[in-house]
Amino acid sequence: MSIIPCPGFRAAGVAAGIKKNQRKDLGLIVCDGPASVAGVFTRNRVQAAPVLLDRERVGLGVCRAVIVNSGNANCCTGADGYRNAVHMARTAAAGLSVPEEQVLVASTGVIGEPLPVARIEQALPALLAALSAEGVPDFAEAIMTTDRVPKMVSRQVAIDGRWVTLTGVAKGAGMIRPDVATMLCFLMTDARVPAEILRDGLAAGAARSFNRITVDGDTSTNDTILILAGGRSGVGLERAGAREAFQTALDEVMLALAKWVVKDAEGSNKLVEIRVVGAATDADARAVADTIAHSPLVKTALFGEDANWGRILAAAGRSGAALDPGRVDIYIGPVQMVSQGIGCGKEVEAAATRVLKTDEFSITIDLHLGPGQAAVYTCDLSIDYVKINADYRS
Amino acid sequence: MSIIPCPGFRAAGVAAGIKKNQRKDLGLIVCDGPASVAGVFTRNRVQAAPVLLDRERVGLGVCRAVIVNSGNANCCTGADGYRNAVHMARTAAAGLSVPEEQVLVASTGVIGEPLPVARIEQALPALLAALSAEGVPDFAEAIMTTDRVPKMVSRQVAIDGRWVTLTGVAKGAGMIRPDVATMLCFLMTDARVPAEILRDGLAAGAARSFNRITVDGDTSTNDTILILAGGRSGVGLERAGAREAFQTALDEVMLALAKWVVKDAEGSNKLVEIRVVGAATDADARAVADTIAHSPLVKTALFGEDANWGRILAAAGRSGAALDPGRVDIYIGPVQMVSQGIGCGKEVEAAATRVLKTDEFSITIDLHLGPGQAAVYTCDLSIDYVKINADYRS
Repeated sequence: MSIIPCPGFRAAGVAAGIKKNQRKDLGLIVCDGPASVAGVFTRNRVQAAPVLLDRERVGLGVCRAVIVNSGNANCCTGADGYRNAVHMARTAAAGLSVPEEQVLVASTGVIGEPLPVARIEQALPALLAALSAEGVPDFAEAIMTTDRVPKMVSRQVAIDGRWVTLTGVAKGAGMIRPDVATMLCFLMTDARVPAEILRDGLAAGAARSFNRITVDGDTSTNDTILILAGGRSGVGLERAGAREAFQTALDEVMLALAKWVVKDAEGSNKLVEIRVVGAATDADARAVADTIAHSPLVKTALFGEDANWGRILAAAGRSGAALDPGRVDIYIGPVQMVSQGIGCGKEVEAAATRVLKTDEFSITIDLHLGPGQAAVYTCDLSIDYVKINADYRS
Repeated sequence: MSIIPCPGFRAAGVAAGIKKNQRKDLGLIVCDGPASVAGVFTRNRVQAAPVLLDRERVGLGVCRAVIVNSGNANCCTGADGYRNAVHMARTAAAGLSVPEEQVLVASTGVIGEPLPVARIEQALPALLAALSAEGVPDFAEAIMTTDRVPKMVSRQVAIDGRWVTLTGVAKGAGMIRPDVATMLCFLMTDARVPAEILRDGLAAGAARSFNRITVDGDTSTNDTILILAGGRSGVGLERAGAREAFQTALDEVMLALAKWVVKDAEGSNKLVEIRVVGAATDADARAVADTIAHSPLVKTALFGEDANWGRILAAAGRSGAALDPGRVDIYIGPVQMVSQGIGCGKEVEAAATRVLKTDEFSITIDLHLGPGQAAVYTCDLSIDYVKINADYRS
């Protein structure tokens, strides 16, 4: 995965002693001037202190830096937690000599334990010293929890004959364990984009990417997506087609990161697209796709590489969507398994099993009722998922 | 578990060769006269042929016999499947010399394969010959799929100075695998109860028992609960308090069977009651309880015996219910883990872990918002659950 530093931004990641074993756990992204900013946050009613703080500050529309720690979610920590989030931002702001309210924060890790702000303060000089245009990989590593690999994606898009860069970093699929809660995503661009337009673009991109993935259905208390537009390229989005070109690149970066998050989820071996077509409405299609994507029985069958279409049809049937079992077709990859609600026989199973043995494929459900469609991404439910999530603390 | 044969009923279970290894797979319950009948069926829109047939026939309010097979769900089998369900009932009706439409059917097992009706016909003479007042344990064994033990419960209740008996049999929690789909429950009583009253009582009992349990959230295509009231005791429910006494016994039988189904679910090691109190409404309480009960993260923590209250609070937060994180209290058994949204510290963990190491306990969430409450039963999500459900066919 090629990663292109975004002009106008520096980044760093260091070990502050929040996580064990001297792993990097404190990251910083800094824009060389005031950047426009927009954010998308968890819809969980239990929200971590950094989310509460960022929600307020992102409304200002201006941001200079984002400081992020892993190893501690600063969640369910009450008024002290909020003060600690403010303090964390203030520490970075002082070090960078930027206005305090232009610094955002994010945390990911164990819920319910006090944030070790002293360690963050102690590590700040090293963090500042490490800032570099080439620092994104270190930042990506510092925000990891049980991610197997750091996740970064870049795209460049030509607007008005000049290149605009988009670079994104993400971590951690779903809320997979309390010391590994949270999906975080940070996006940087050198395009010149007003905050309102950035906000619309980020919301649209999130709807098409991070809001279409599931690992275990457990929304985190800390989920945060931020985009900063520094403007260093001098390219605005006013000209015809410019905004669309930028949005396409943003969508691509976000979808690539979102799919990577599913593929790299704990215990995940397969990235599976659940496509529903022919539903009465898009909402119905989404309900069917979500129910299939969350079904433990479907997900264990994916792990077992078992062409178990009965589980898929049964999940569709309990989704609440309008459905006539006698019309439903189901495909695993290109292989039709079910026609008008009835299995296509043992002959097609070998072909379906070949698809299931690959690590990325689609399952398509055609309800033959209307124009509604939706697609979500899910992964298998493996023995490792249970082991990892049961063996917390041991 | 003491099981009392219900006067007026005979039962049997034999091996018909539908399941492998000569296990019992065909069961019959017969009432010596016309019984009142009521049924509760799956709400999945994909419904097996026996469910479609029973829905029609249960409306008549009269039933003489129920024939049940395991090893094949007769689901997603189209018009042939429906004809096979009718044929299965007709075969039993002919053998018993009772009206065809007074015979109900149920099936559980693999989805999408033709029901082997010829084997059922061949086994019918042996099944009829085996009918006996003492035959309920054989029937209970014949409807098992991956249940570890047959599940039967009896209660006797004094009404008007005479004993009324209620005996129930159940199998299989949730839709755990496609050849083991389905929860089935059959209840017999010698009370004299009109079908309309039986219907109301069964619906109320189901709401307080089988509709409050979850294993994996995957509603089966075949779920069926039937109650037959033969009247042999001569005791009616007209006198003051009689109906309430009968309902109490019915509730007890159904709840005992429902909890047993969760405790005996595949891979299940623990029966856990999720109690929510202080919600704004009962519906909110139920939403919180259901979300916690279905959360893979909560369920893997239960398997790991880990006092992971962050997962419980995060699941409550995403339930959609009104919730103020700063007011929430959480108890594991009697041990308070969270007070006003904040953890009670490491000191209480040892006590909570002792509770988690037992095989049956409650988790209580108090939202401190209003009078709403609800309780559901769930089990842990274990490595065995994944193994069993991934290794289908291998």
